[in-house]
Amino acid sequence: MEYPSDAIAKVVEALAQLPGIGRKTALRMALQLLKDPYGLSETLGHALIELKTRTQYCQQCFNISDGPRCNICLNTRRNDKQICVVEDVRDLMAIERTGQYQGQYHLLGGLIHPMNGTGPSDLNIDSLVQRVHTQGTEELILALSSTMEGETTAFYIVKKLRGVPIRMTNIARGIPMGSDLAYTDELTLGRSLMHRTDYLLPTEA
Amino acid sequence: MEYPSDAIAKVVEALAQLPGIGRKTALRMALQLLKDPYGLSETLGHALIELKTRTQYCQQCFNISDGPRCNICLNTRRNDKQICVVEDVRDLMAIERTGQYQGQYHLLGGLIHPMNGTGPSDLNIDSLVQRVHTQGTEELILALSSTMEGETTAFYIVKKLRGVPIRMTNIARGIPMGSDLAYTDELTLGRSLMHRTDYLLPTEA
Repeated sequence: MEYPSDAIAKVVEALAQLPGIGRKTALRMALQLLKDPYGLSETLGHALIELKTRTQYCQQCFNISDGPRCNICLNTRRNDKQICVVEDVRDLMAIERTGQYQGQYHLLGGLIHPMNGTGPSDLNIDSLVQRVHTQGTEELILALSSTMEGETTAFYIVKKLRGVPIRMTNIARGIPMGSDLAYTDELTLGRSLMHRTDYLLPTEA
Repeated sequence: MEYPSDAIAKVVEALAQLPGIGRKTALRMALQLLKDPYGLSETLGHALIELKTRTQYCQQCFNISDGPRCNICLNTRRNDKQICVVEDVRDLMAIERTGQYQGQYHLLGGLIHPMNGTGPSDLNIDSLVQRVHTQGTEELILALSSTMEGETTAFYIVKKLRGVPIRMTNIARGIPMGSDLAYTDELTLGRSLMHRTDYLLPTEA
């Protein structure tokens, strides 16, 4: 594409490298930014330049952080005997939004994926093992995606920690809340039958 | 949403103001930018900051430009007796990509849209009328969208220039190339019947 101005061309080329953004969408964004009277372009520009210099990874759990330790690890009211293992910060944020978890996290930074060339040594697994030993962890909750890569990674971690006297749990797989049984895939339905739980009447619960 | 770092939060909030980008997509982009090893974040940041200071609007046709006149107006090999009236730079770029047009442009900067509060005085129409008078224009091609707003704007311009001895043309409306007749809406089909052209055998053409 030929652009009417070099400045626009630079912005479009850079925006088009973001995930899910093609050249046409990038151009629409660039034109919007050019029209915007509130200086969004400058605000976003400065935020992007500061992004890498201001963020670091938590030295304990590898969460994104403004300092050497993230707010979750620094929070003394959270249970440091529980570690929830997640793939990345998006999964951490999803779990935080449920408001159901008061322990700590460990971010692997990916999943074992031999096809993509991601092996166990590329992930924060050694640091997890070390942490379990030094921190006196009582429970390790594996909250990984229910995919081939997620299951492989969970299996690898469980094998690595075999013999260590901690409880290792997996988040429940089953039918999502509000979903229609007839439209649920067989694998999920099969698993949710296998892992059925005792029915509790609301009064008993 | 609560973000693990202020720097990430700033980027997400700014990205989410772009058209078609929600907070989830913005977060995915921010995390990708944080991981990117090639400094895309800085490149995009600097490009965005320079965007407004480095671009201007062409004083003649209101195209986006690096200088006071755009490359199209400065190109002496283009026919300055022909002016193609378009809504914005995206339409200009679409026409340029066809390679079928060698004249100049005039960008209105929008269309008349009373519901949005956009009237003729908000658009570059007065400058167009003045340009037609001073530049000795022979043909004005109206290349506006085939919508209520586009037709209203075209009608307004034609009325404004009534009595001026120039040819005023409208780009052809009809069935798009490669489209199936059965799936064409009645309005388009009706128009394409009304504006039918003499059939030329390939040898005659």
